[in-house]
Amino acid sequence: MILEKIKDPKQIHNLNNDELKTLAKEVRMRIVEVVSNTGGHIAPSLGAVDFTIALLKLFDPLKDRIVWDVGHQSYGWKILTGRNAEFVSLRQLNGISGFTNRNESPYDAFTTGHSSTSISAALGMACARDLNQEKGHCIAVIGDGALTGGMSFEALNHAGHLQKDKFIVLLNDNAMSISKNVGGLQKYMARMLASRSYNTLKKQIWDLSGSLPSSVRRRFIYGAQKLEESMLNILVPNIIFEDLGFKYVGPIDGHDIDQLLTILKRVKGFMVGPVLLHVVTKKGKGYAPAEKNATLFHGIGPFEPTSGKQVCSGKESWSEVMGNTLVDLAAKNQKIAAITAAMTAGTGLTGFEQKYPDRFFDVGIAEQHAITLAAGMATKGIKPFVAIYSTFMQRALDQVIHDVALPKLPVVFCLDRAGLVGEDGATHHGVFDIAFLNFIPNLIILAPENATELSAMLAWASEYQLGPVAIRYPRGTAKCLPDFSLASEFDPQKAVIHSNEGNLALVAAGDAFHTAEKVHEVLAEKGVAASLVQLRAIKPLDLDSLRQIARQCTRIYTFETGSRIGGLGARIAQELSNEAVRICCFGYPDEFITHGKTNELIDLLQLNPDAIAARIIGEL
Amino acid sequence: MILEKIKDPKQIHNLNNDELKTLAKEVRMRIVEVVSNTGGHIAPSLGAVDFTIALLKLFDPLKDRIVWDVGHQSYGWKILTGRNAEFVSLRQLNGISGFTNRNESPYDAFTTGHSSTSISAALGMACARDLNQEKGHCIAVIGDGALTGGMSFEALNHAGHLQKDKFIVLLNDNAMSISKNVGGLQKYMARMLASRSYNTLKKQIWDLSGSLPSSVRRRFIYGAQKLEESMLNILVPNIIFEDLGFKYVGPIDGHDIDQLLTILKRVKGFMVGPVLLHVVTKKGKGYAPAEKNATLFHGIGPFEPTSGKQVCSGKESWSEVMGNTLVDLAAKNQKIAAITAAMTAGTGLTGFEQKYPDRFFDVGIAEQHAITLAAGMATKGIKPFVAIYSTFMQRALDQVIHDVALPKLPVVFCLDRAGLVGEDGATHHGVFDIAFLNFIPNLIILAPENATELSAMLAWASEYQLGPVAIRYPRGTAKCLPDFSLASEFDPQKAVIHSNEGNLALVAAGDAFHTAEKVHEVLAEKGVAASLVQLRAIKPLDLDSLRQIARQCTRIYTFETGSRIGGLGARIAQELSNEAVRICCFGYPDEFITHGKTNELIDLLQLNPDAIAARIIGEL
Repeated sequence: MILEKIKDPKQIHNLNNDELKTLAKEVRMRIVEVVSNTGGHIAPSLGAVDFTIALLKLFDPLKDRIVWDVGHQSYGWKILTGRNAEFVSLRQLNGISGFTNRNESPYDAFTTGHSSTSISAALGMACARDLNQEKGHCIAVIGDGALTGGMSFEALNHAGHLQKDKFIVLLNDNAMSISKNVGGLQKYMARMLASRSYNTLKKQIWDLSGSLPSSVRRRFIYGAQKLEESMLNILVPNIIFEDLGFKYVGPIDGHDIDQLLTILKRVKGFMVGPVLLHVVTKKGKGYAPAEKNATLFHGIGPFEPTSGKQVCSGKESWSEVMGNTLVDLAAKNQKIAAITAAMTAGTGLTGFEQKYPDRFFDVGIAEQHAITLAAGMATKGIKPFVAIYSTFMQRALDQVIHDVALPKLPVVFCLDRAGLVGEDGATHHGVFDIAFLNFIPNLIILAPENATELSAMLAWASEYQLGPVAIRYPRGTAKCLPDFSLASEFDPQKAVIHSNEGNLALVAAGDAFHTAEKVHEVLAEKGVAASLVQLRAIKPLDLDSLRQIARQCTRIYTFETGSRIGGLGARIAQELSNEAVRICCFGYPDEFITHGKTNELIDLLQLNPDAIAARIIGEL
Repeated sequence: MILEKIKDPKQIHNLNNDELKTLAKEVRMRIVEVVSNTGGHIAPSLGAVDFTIALLKLFDPLKDRIVWDVGHQSYGWKILTGRNAEFVSLRQLNGISGFTNRNESPYDAFTTGHSSTSISAALGMACARDLNQEKGHCIAVIGDGALTGGMSFEALNHAGHLQKDKFIVLLNDNAMSISKNVGGLQKYMARMLASRSYNTLKKQIWDLSGSLPSSVRRRFIYGAQKLEESMLNILVPNIIFEDLGFKYVGPIDGHDIDQLLTILKRVKGFMVGPVLLHVVTKKGKGYAPAEKNATLFHGIGPFEPTSGKQVCSGKESWSEVMGNTLVDLAAKNQKIAAITAAMTAGTGLTGFEQKYPDRFFDVGIAEQHAITLAAGMATKGIKPFVAIYSTFMQRALDQVIHDVALPKLPVVFCLDRAGLVGEDGATHHGVFDIAFLNFIPNLIILAPENATELSAMLAWASEYQLGPVAIRYPRGTAKCLPDFSLASEFDPQKAVIHSNEGNLALVAAGDAFHTAEKVHEVLAEKGVAASLVQLRAIKPLDLDSLRQIARQCTRIYTFETGSRIGGLGARIAQELSNEAVRICCFGYPDEFITHGKTNELIDLLQLNPDAIAARIIGEL
C-alpha cells in the first residue's frame, strides 16, 4: 500500500506516474470502504481522485491555494492531506467534515458547502497574494453544475477584467451537477467537446504568442511547438471563456494521470492571465455501482460496499409527501407548476417531472433565478411551487423580498430540510429561515407537524392568491397519522390548543411540536400541568390565542427548530412584552452547529425533551 | 405638441417615423423639466427614450409584456403609458414611483428597483404564456451593467435551454452601469463593436435558415436577403450569446428610430427561440449636461435645468465620512483594501480609488462575488472593507453567513443607506438589515450615531481580527460634533448611559438615537423623567447594562431605524423576557414603506419624536 506511507502530501512529489496510478486506486478503495459505512458524497469524490493526485504532485498544498467548490468532491484531498486515519469519522460527531473546512486543516484553503463560491474565493486569494507580494498559484476547482450559479459568472467576469497570472479555474466537467445538468452553457460545452480542431488550436497558440513581450516570446514559441506536438486533438479554443478574458485549455481526460500531469505542468508555467482548464471526468469513476447511478450515489447514506445496495428506510420522507401531494394538486389545478434548482430528486419532484414535464422547471443551481422566474409566472396566473432547501434559500433572500413579497405575488416556497440536517453540518443546517423570512411583509410562513398537515397546507396554499406562502418542513421521515384527519375547515393560521391547564404553556410550531409534546408528557409525569399549543403558522401569528394563553400563565416556553435570535420565540416575546407573563425561548443557540446525527446534536445542545423538562422544573 | 395628445399608448401605433422622432424630443424635454425639480434617474431614462418609443410603436404594452430591469430607465415609458400628468409627482409621497411598479399601472409588467431581475421575470412570463396558450412577446430590457449581476447569467443560461419563441432580451448597451463598467464581458462587447463583418453576417443568416422548417424557410430566405441588403454592417455574430442558445442581432444604434423600427419589426417575426437584440445607446442622450457627466446624472437631486447645476448641500455625507476615514486608515495599514459593487461614488470610495488603485476593487453589479472575494482576501491577511447599500446586501446574505461568518473571517461590511432612503422608496429602503444579520453567529453589528463614531468604529474594525464586523449608517448628511471626542478607550460594544433617571428607559442604536434624544427632551418638558441609553453595538448586546436598566424601570422603549420584527427591540424583548419590565419596540411596521421624503415617511408612520412621546405619555 502506497497510501499508508503518505503521512505528508509532499511525499506525493516523489512518486512516479505508475505509483500515482496505484495511489489513485487505493484512495478510491478507501473512499468506498469508509463512505459505505458513514454515507456521504461518494460519486463526486470518486470522479475527482485522479486530478486531486495530479494537483498534489505538481503544487504545494500549503503555499499554493486550492479551493474546492462545494467541497463534496474533496474526500481524496482529505485522505491525502493528513486525514486518512480520521477519514473513518467522516460526517460523524467530532469527526471530520464532509466538506472542506479551514478549521479542520491548514490544507483546506476555504470553508465550503454551498455551490459556486470557489472562483470568487480563489480570486480574492490571488488579489491578496499580489498585494502581499507573495508567490504561489490560486486554483478554483469547480464542477460544471456549480458553474451555472450566478456568482460563478460574476467571478469569471471580474477575473477576466483583473487578468491575474497564476490563477487557474479547473473546470471539472462531468456533464451533470447532481442529477443531469441544465442550461445553454451545458449544451454549448457538449457541442464543444465534439469539435476539436487542430487548425484552430494552432491559430490560438500563435495569437497567444503575439500578446507576449518579446523577451519571453521566443521561449513561448518553442514551448508552443512542443505543445502542439504533444497535445494534438486535446486542445480546442473555447470562445465563451476566451471572450471573458480567460485562456482556455482543454478538454482533457480527467482520469488519465499522464495527460493531466503533462498539461498541468505546462499550465503552471503560463504567464498569460487567468486560465480555464477544462477537465472531463466521470462521476463515480472506479466504483461500478456509482458509475451506473451517479445521481443516487451523489450523496448517499450507508450502503453495502460490494453490491452498492442501500439500506432502505421504507417510510415516506417529507420531500416525498410534498412531491406526491403536488402531483395530486396539479391533476386538479392546471395552473400549478413546480420549480427546482438542481434538486429534483432531493425535493421529491421526480414524480412531478415525469407526470407534468411541461409544468416542471429545473433551472440548474440558480436559486435567485428560480424565485424570480416563479414571480414572472405568477404575474400571468400560473401558481408556481418553488422547492428549495432551507439553507439554499439564503441565496435568494432579495428575490423573495423584492420580486415576490413586495408585489404580493402568489408564489409558494417549499422549504425542505428546515432545521438540523445532521451529517452535512454547519453549512447545510436549515436553521436560519424563520429569522430571514419572518420580517418580510406580505409573506405567510407555515410549518406542518405531520404529513397530513403538510398536504393540507400545500392544498391551502394552492388556493391562496393574495401573496406568497412559505412552508417549512424538516429532513427525514414524515410523521404519519393514518387515523388523523384535519377539520374540514382547515385554517392554518389558527393556533391549535391541544391542552389548556396549569399556569405554564408550551408553544411550538412545526416539528418542534414533537419536542413540546414530549416535554408536556414528562412534566405531566412529574405532576406539572401545562397548556400545549401548536402554531401551524409562524406568520401571521395567532396573537389572539397567544394573548389569551399569556393571561392564564406565568410562563410561556416556545419551541422551534431554528435559531433563537430572530425566530418565532423572539417574535412572541416581542408581541407579548406588554403582558405580565415571562417567556423563555428554546431554539438553536447563536453559534454554527457542527455535524453529526441530528439526535446527537440535539443532545449536545441540551435541547432534548428530558433536558428541557428538567430546566423548566428547575425554574419553578 | 404630439405628447399632449397621447392619452393611450396605442395612439403611438398610428404615428409616422417623423412624428415619432418629434415625440422623442418632447419626451426628453418633459423628463428634464420634471426631474430637474424632483430629482431622479435622469441619464438612464434619457438614453432609453428612442427604443421605448420603438417598442410602443410595434408592440402592445398590455398583451406583450415588457420588463424594465431596475426600472430607472422607464420615465419615458411612464410618460407614454398614461402617466404624463402624474409624472410631476415622480418619487414624491403619494406620487408615482421612480421604478416600474405593478400596483401603479397595468402597463408595468413587473415591480422593479434592484438590478438583474428582468430576464428571469420575462422568462417566467414566457413560460406562463405558453402554459396558458396565450399569445404575445415577453421582452426584458436590460442594461450592460445589470448583465454583470449573476442572476442575469442564470436566466440567460436557462433561457438558452428552454428555447422559447417570442422571447427577446433587449440589451441596452451604454458601456457603463452607474459609473464605468467592469468585467471581461464588457471588454468583450467593446471588441465586438469594433469587428462588424458582412461575411459572417451572411453565414449566420444562412445557418439560421437551415434550422427552420421548410414551410417557412422560403419566406425566411426572402426576408434574409432583404435583411442583408438593408442591414449591411450592422449585424455581427455574437458568439457568447449564441453559445448560450440565443440568436444575436446587433449592435444597432439605439437612437436611430428608423433603424430601430426596421430591425425590431423583423425580430418580432422571428421564430428561432430566444433573441438577444443588442442596442447601443448614450446615457443622458439629448441633454448636454447629462451626456457630459452621465455618472453624476445617473441618479441626481434637483438641478437647474438650463445649466444642469446642482444645489449643493455643502455638508459631509455619511458615505464621505466612511470613504475619507478609510483613506486615512489605509495610509497607516497597508493591508486594508476596499471593495464596491458598482457604487464607487455612492459609497464614498472615489478618493480611495484615486489614492490606492491597487487596493481598490470595483467588481461590477455583483454583490455575491464582492463578499466572497473579500472572504478570499481575508484568508490571506488582507483586511477588506466591503461598502454596499443595506438594501443590496439582501443579495449576499448567504455569502455573509457561509463564506465570512462561519469561518470567522475578519471582513468589514460598510452598510450604507441603512434605514429609510426617501424618494427611491420600497425597493431601496435599508430597513431589513438588522433582521437579516442579527441571527448570524460570529458577526458584530455596529451603528454610529455621528460622524466621529463612524470613524472610530471603522478604526476599531480595522484592528479587529476575530471575525466579521458590519457597520450600518444612514443615507444623507452625517451629524458632526466638532467638539466631540471619544473616550480614549473606545469600546463600541459598551452601552452609553446618557441619563439615568425615572422608571422609564429609552434605548436606541445608531441614528435612531437622534429620535430617542428628542423624545427624551419632549418627555422632560412634560415632567416625565426617563433614562437614555445608546447602544453602539446591535450585536453583541451589552446585556449587563440592559439588565441593570431593566431592574430600575417599569418600561423600556427601544428605537431603531429598521423593521420591528426581527430587529434590535425584538432581541431586547427576548433577552429581557425574564425581567418584570415591559418592553415596547419602535421600529418600522410589517409593511413595505412607500417613497417620499424621509421626514414625510416618518410622519406617516407616526414615528416622529412628538408622536412617540405622546404615545409614551398616553401609556403612563
